[in-house]
Amino acid sequence: MAWNTNLRWRLPLTCLLLQVALVVLFGVFVRYSPDADAHWIEYKKTRNVSSDLDNEFYYRYPSFQDVHVMIFVGFGFLMTFLQRYGYSSVGFNFLLAAFGIQWALLMQGWFHSFEDGYILIGVENLINADFCVGSVCVAFGAILGKVSPIQLLIMTLFQVTLFSVNEFILLNLLAVKDAGGSMTIHTFGAYFGLTVTRILYRPNLYQSKERESAVYQSDIFAMIGTLFLWMYWPSFNSAVSSHGDAQHRAAINTYCSLAACVLTTVALSSALNKKGKLDMVHIQNATLAGGVAVGTAAEMMLMPYGSVIVGFFCGIICTLGYVYLTPFLESHLWIQDTCGIHNLHGIPGIIGGIVGAVTAACANSYTYGQQGLAHAFDFDVSNHEWSSSTQGGFQAAGIFVSLAMALVGGTIVGLILKLPIWGQPADENCFEDAIYWEVPEDQKDIVVHAEDPTLKPSEP
Amino acid sequence: MAWNTNLRWRLPLTCLLLQVALVVLFGVFVRYSPDADAHWIEYKKTRNVSSDLDNEFYYRYPSFQDVHVMIFVGFGFLMTFLQRYGYSSVGFNFLLAAFGIQWALLMQGWFHSFEDGYILIGVENLINADFCVGSVCVAFGAILGKVSPIQLLIMTLFQVTLFSVNEFILLNLLAVKDAGGSMTIHTFGAYFGLTVTRILYRPNLYQSKERESAVYQSDIFAMIGTLFLWMYWPSFNSAVSSHGDAQHRAAINTYCSLAACVLTTVALSSALNKKGKLDMVHIQNATLAGGVAVGTAAEMMLMPYGSVIVGFFCGIICTLGYVYLTPFLESHLWIQDTCGIHNLHGIPGIIGGIVGAVTAACANSYTYGQQGLAHAFDFDVSNHEWSSSTQGGFQAAGIFVSLAMALVGGTIVGLILKLPIWGQPADENCFEDAIYWEVPEDQKDIVVHAEDPTLKPSEP
Amino acid sequence: MAWNTNLRWRLPLTCLLLQVALVVLFGVFVRYSPDADAHWIEYKKTRNVSSDLDNEFYYRYPSFQDVHVMIFVGFGFLMTFLQRYGYSSVGFNFLLAAFGIQWALLMQGWFHSFEDGYILIGVENLINADFCVGSVCVAFGAILGKVSPIQLLIMTLFQVTLFSVNEFILLNLLAVKDAGGSMTIHTFGAYFGLTVTRILYRPNLYQSKERESAVYQSDIFAMIGTLFLWMYWPSFNSAVSSHGDAQHRAAINTYCSLAACVLTTVALSSALNKKGKLDMVHIQNATLAGGVAVGTAAEMMLMPYGSVIVGFFCGIICTLGYVYLTPFLESHLWIQDTCGIHNLHGIPGIIGGIVGAVTAACANSYTYGQQGLAHAFDFDVSNHEWSSSTQGGFQAAGIFVSLAMALVGGTIVGLILKLPIWGQPADENCFEDAIYWEVPEDQKDIVVHAEDPTLKPSEP
Repeated sequence: MAWNTNLRWRLPLTCLLLQVALVVLFGVFVRYSPDADAHWIEYKKTRNVSSDLDNEFYYRYPSFQDVHVMIFVGFGFLMTFLQRYGYSSVGFNFLLAAFGIQWALLMQGWFHSFEDGYILIGVENLINADFCVGSVCVAFGAILGKVSPIQLLIMTLFQVTLFSVNEFILLNLLAVKDAGGSMTIHTFGAYFGLTVTRILYRPNLYQSKERESAVYQSDIFAMIGTLFLWMYWPSFNSAVSSHGDAQHRAAINTYCSLAACVLTTVALSSALNKKGKLDMVHIQNATLAGGVAVGTAAEMMLMPYGSVIVGFFCGIICTLGYVYLTPFLESHLWIQDTCGIHNLHGIPGIIGGIVGAVTAACANSYTYGQQGLAHAFDFDVSNHEWSSSTQGGFQAAGIFVSLAMALVGGTIVGLILKLPIWGQPADENCFEDAIYWEVPEDQKDIVVHAEDPTLKPSEP
Repeated sequence: MAWNTNLRWRLPLTCLLLQVALVVLFGVFVRYSPDADAHWIEYKKTRNVSSDLDNEFYYRYPSFQDVHVMIFVGFGFLMTFLQRYGYSSVGFNFLLAAFGIQWALLMQGWFHSFEDGYILIGVENLINADFCVGSVCVAFGAILGKVSPIQLLIMTLFQVTLFSVNEFILLNLLAVKDAGGSMTIHTFGAYFGLTVTRILYRPNLYQSKERESAVYQSDIFAMIGTLFLWMYWPSFNSAVSSHGDAQHRAAINTYCSLAACVLTTVALSSALNKKGKLDMVHIQNATLAGGVAVGTAAEMMLMPYGSVIVGFFCGIICTLGYVYLTPFLESHLWIQDTCGIHNLHGIPGIIGGIVGAVTAACANSYTYGQQGLAHAFDFDVSNHEWSSSTQGGFQAAGIFVSLAMALVGGTIVGLILKLPIWGQPADENCFEDAIYWEVPEDQKDIVVHAEDPTLKPSEP
Repeated sequence: MAWNTNLRWRLPLTCLLLQVALVVLFGVFVRYSPDADAHWIEYKKTRNVSSDLDNEFYYRYPSFQDVHVMIFVGFGFLMTFLQRYGYSSVGFNFLLAAFGIQWALLMQGWFHSFEDGYILIGVENLINADFCVGSVCVAFGAILGKVSPIQLLIMTLFQVTLFSVNEFILLNLLAVKDAGGSMTIHTFGAYFGLTVTRILYRPNLYQSKERESAVYQSDIFAMIGTLFLWMYWPSFNSAVSSHGDAQHRAAINTYCSLAACVLTTVALSSALNKKGKLDMVHIQNATLAGGVAVGTAAEMMLMPYGSVIVGFFCGIICTLGYVYLTPFLESHLWIQDTCGIHNLHGIPGIIGGIVGAVTAACANSYTYGQQGLAHAFDFDVSNHEWSSSTQGGFQAAGIFVSLAMALVGGTIVGLILKLPIWGQPADENCFEDAIYWEVPEDQKDIVVHAEDPTLKPSEP
């Protein structure tokens, strides 16, 4: 197939249209939360807040910046492992995330921060917007190299919308706890992306196969992404937890889980190779599975040993997935998952949901203290209806809701993206920056196929 | 022209002389601020400060570290886009910034933190020193590849001095607000650098033209710089704002402006290319213009929609500048602006000054609250002389003062740097690491021209 | 010599065994500190803590994240300067650090956070674990390229153990102050690593000499490591200092020392080169010596000028070390120090210990205030036994204890690592990723020697 990949008018118009719409919606709806408004000096007095430090900014801003780095450098560079797709990996991730965070501020704002006709935003909204975009970055991993930037913007538009609905159902209707987003971000993002890539299945993708791998330098660039994701994941899982012990605990649990995950990833990577050699793909990805899988339970009393156990198994499962499951999904289920997000976000996301449900179901006032329990699960101490087993049940329900939203949403969005008008690359031009970017001379001579198929259609 | 580029005695002597002078001046003048002095435990009691958290350190240190990363990794790597100038981009930026921050601690200290014969430094001084050096990094972008490290040190010496004078005029004499430095850092830095590069005009620079472009890997390195600048810019614009709501608001506004800027940059980059392809130069630079342009107004009640509007237009203007203005400046005004700082810091800096002036002029007690207004613009509530329109006028005056200082100062410094004694590279050796660095064998064979023109003068 | 480098069963078993042991030990011993436990809400009341902000998390978490980046990105990328050892530098550093932090949580926990049979961990434990691993990363620099990942894991196991014992002797028995670890981390780590590499001496290492150098891109990758170490070092030296002024002061002193160090490094690097050219090795390493050398004294009243003086001399000494001492150590003492850790951590570490001892010995109540002195050196004001000269003496003793522990420990560990069963590379395969990693095709053809010496033994 050969689509017109000259985006000269389509991409600019899409970007400008979306941004104009965002400007208008921001004008109508978005204002500052009391903590960020100049009236705060008066607000502070009415609330008897004595110190400027009680501004939400000081509780959350350092975590916000860490999460911000994860979204833009972490996800962006993680995907630069492809030999000729570095510009697109970093650049398109930058584009979709910049659009996504604005749209997420609005969507999540309507659901969670809407007061008197206005969305009141503060640092917590910024974190949540980054989180929401995180799920789009996950889905991007499945279709990496096979879509145009217009398709990515459209997917972001829909996915952010669906994410916000799903998040509202889980957090508000089911009263699920999911601070690190095992369900809302990873499970939803992964299965959404996998459904989209299934629908966009390209039977002739083998024509680009020689570019669907790394070169030496690109693998080192990708490690920048891996390490910033790995290092800042404790901030990710603790960024929106309750002040004090919950935030503290979430960081510790994530730190422990991730550390354990590295060792089992290395073990499996070596054991599954004939010559006992390590595979960069595993080190780049499976080492992060432990962070995904404690996303829900990190702020609970999972215990440090609980965290290392979760990390232990996720490193193993995720590496096994890269070796056995990804090829199977491609050959038997026609799911072409470029970055293997099913192994890194899909399965560990579900595991994270289950670990969260079990940990919640086991919660009791001995482990948490009477008040601590009420505080951790956000119910009134005098409320005798709450029980840990009910909480566990709702947590489990959250996994299924997320899966259902991902599959249905992904199908619809996949079908929209299948329309032949979005400038997607031909099968032989996938994983190639030169289709959408001006590349320097040193790379241009490498490009074999016609860059503008409308003028000179390429034969398969 | 061929100068002696062997810096063996000149560079060491310059560095050592400067550093010895700094040691002496530090010995005579620099002490700790009360928050960093061991007497703090007693100081705390006399001031009725109850908690260690009220130490300025905890308000500002996370922002300081983000700014620090912007100066050293952000600016340093942004300039690695040149194919054979990576060592110099990162290394010379490192050198000038390390010198500059020490000199700025002194210069700014004399103006702002001088008490009883001593400069008392704390975390806010560290941030301001980084800010000051930021303006030198901006100017460095204009002359990148065409100067020796000695010239850079001399320029830093003078520019930091002039920056501090200009900053004192603006902040103290005109009582201008400029927390993110649209005027003091960006406008001043850009026009200073442009004036210097105008005076250092090289008519035969075309001899190095083949090296004044990127290769594939160097563009990806540059994206590390871009992203760290982009992600941490909210910290930059909020780092020295007042505690509480102002810092919080500055971060939100910058976040919004930068996000909007990315979309319009992508739109214009594609629209201005015949084949609709994106240009890495635009993505690396114009996406940041939104941060520059809200530098002054970010801490004011600009409103989130105000921020996205500013970002919207700056992405467009900056990209247009790269396509049309930079070539025009070079061919008609003889301004060779290697990194296009006029587009990224010059114009957006002036826009930022204007936005700040307008936002200040529109400030009223309805939007800010009575006390909030006085707090935001730092005047006594009982003072009936202050009016927002006066403030706006002073803000506008600040732009002109900064421009005047930049042009006059840049001319003088440019003339000093034109002296043929600083080891500047010959026209055919510009944009080439091998002149000032030991480069590995794999690169050496690429170097065509003589490395030491005193021994073997090269013919043009 | 040719060892079997196929690690297929040995590496997986080592990793899994270690991780299973850690899981069990975590299960038996590790619990949350009160600040991270769900009972905190009750604990807070009993301690009259009013605000969530008084949770240790908010004092230390931003510093923790900076330190975390230094260990994984800083050390990891600093070592990518070798042309064909990027995967191993980043990947093995990742592996050993992930194992080391878990083991350090236990070892340091038993010594410092053991209560009622449990190790109670909080954010300070995470920082200290990262610190402890920092000393292993230092030692890794000496043997880089010459050992297998199994050897690294074994070295980490022993070195973390010895580090914890040494740290306990210094901090608890000698009551030494060493917040930035000049002695405990750098001196100990460096001389431990140097002893190990001495014992693992390879007389035929010249066979790999062509790979023991950088290529253009690898040097730029290494600068990522350098800059993140340099920028975040103020956080490193202040991360575990007392709340308030001490933490504040430690950051300022480190910032000043590091800045001065850059200028003298550049001066010496140029002066020691015939053509006055700069050497990337010096810029990558010697610029950091100032941070090492104020590790002990940074939190004391070293004064900003004291810091710049320390930085001034360390830049000079460290660069001289790279030019003269490293070759001497290799040729005369048979110490093959790949990264030159003796120059960057060894000598500056000892200088740091001495500076700390002198600064402590000069401490008096005029400079610190009566209470400030007691607070800074952690003694009871009513205790008349404490004197600054005694403190200085103990500080000095700390250097010797660290050196002794390093030499004895390094000898034992070196002998263990010399056993021919750990899969170490043959002399001609050192500094080569392809021995332990699947490398992309573009690199494979470069590998000259047999990868699996058991099948096809290579002749020296």
